Amino acid sequence: MTYDQNNVFARILRGELPAQKFFEDERTIAILDAMPQSEGHSLVIPKCAAQNIFELDAEFAGAVIRTGQQIARTVRDVFQADGITLMQFNGAEAGQTVFHFHLHVIPRYVGRPLRSHGRGFADPEVLAEQAARLRAALDGR
Amino acid sequence: MTYDQNNVFARILRGELPAQKFFEDERTIAILDAMPQSEGHSLVIPKCAAQNIFELDAEFAGAVIRTGQQIARTVRDVFQADGITLMQFNGAEAGQTVFHFHLHVIPRYVGRPLRSHGRGFADPEVLAEQAARLRAALDGR
Repeated sequence: MTYDQNNVFARILRGELPAQKFFEDERTIAILDAMPQSEGHSLVIPKCAAQNIFELDAEFAGAVIRTGQQIARTVRDVFQADGITLMQFNGAEAGQTVFHFHLHVIPRYVGRPLRSHGRGFADPEVLAEQAARLRAALDGR
Repeated sequence: MTYDQNNVFARILRGELPAQKFFEDERTIAILDAMPQSEGHSLVIPKCAAQNIFELDAEFAGAVIRTGQQIARTVRDVFQADGITLMQFNGAEAGQTVFHFHLHVIPRYVGRPLRSHGRGFADPEVLAEQAARLRAALDGR
């Protein structure tokens, strides 16, 4: 399978689709997942045409983990999460649904099990408010 | 909670406990999970005293993703996996059970759901044979 230039994340990166983006650097962006499994569920997306970890070049892989670390710390602090799970799916059989590499940063909370992925869209106003809090926290670092 | 110098992975890194290690470089090792969720389930472990991604310094984070990428490709090829899931847990509430940072590299196979983690130890002879195949494949790269 070749990289589809019109996958959802490619279109978000080109600004053709809206997203709750709260971080951007030269090689990555971070957005809130539109169908969050928990409060603060975020995605780190590299600005390159790679479907999965097999295709991601080393420079972008390094950028993803640097951003992922920063986002994990910020999400934990802003949402007072009890833990953070990182997940990254390669291939449909592994649970991948959008074929542009992305790292899930999923806050975990005592007594609140994860929601299934893809169960429905979050309220855009709630996500916008959360993104604003994350941006403010990142600006303060 | 402070880092426990006697956690299982610290002891494996010091050579005090056996493990099916099939890769090592300056900053990381890769081993087969003793309680695999699927055939070829591997762990990338940095050689530093970090409980989780919050404590991992950037140099080791970069090393982990470099090794993780190499191990993901090798595991996919050796076991002809249909996909690879990466998982990394931070905090007991996120599913972490050993409090030394580790990245799960979990092969996925069509028609074979993941086994629960911690359900029991794999046959050491089977793991040893798998580790030998992984070492041979890595040597050939």
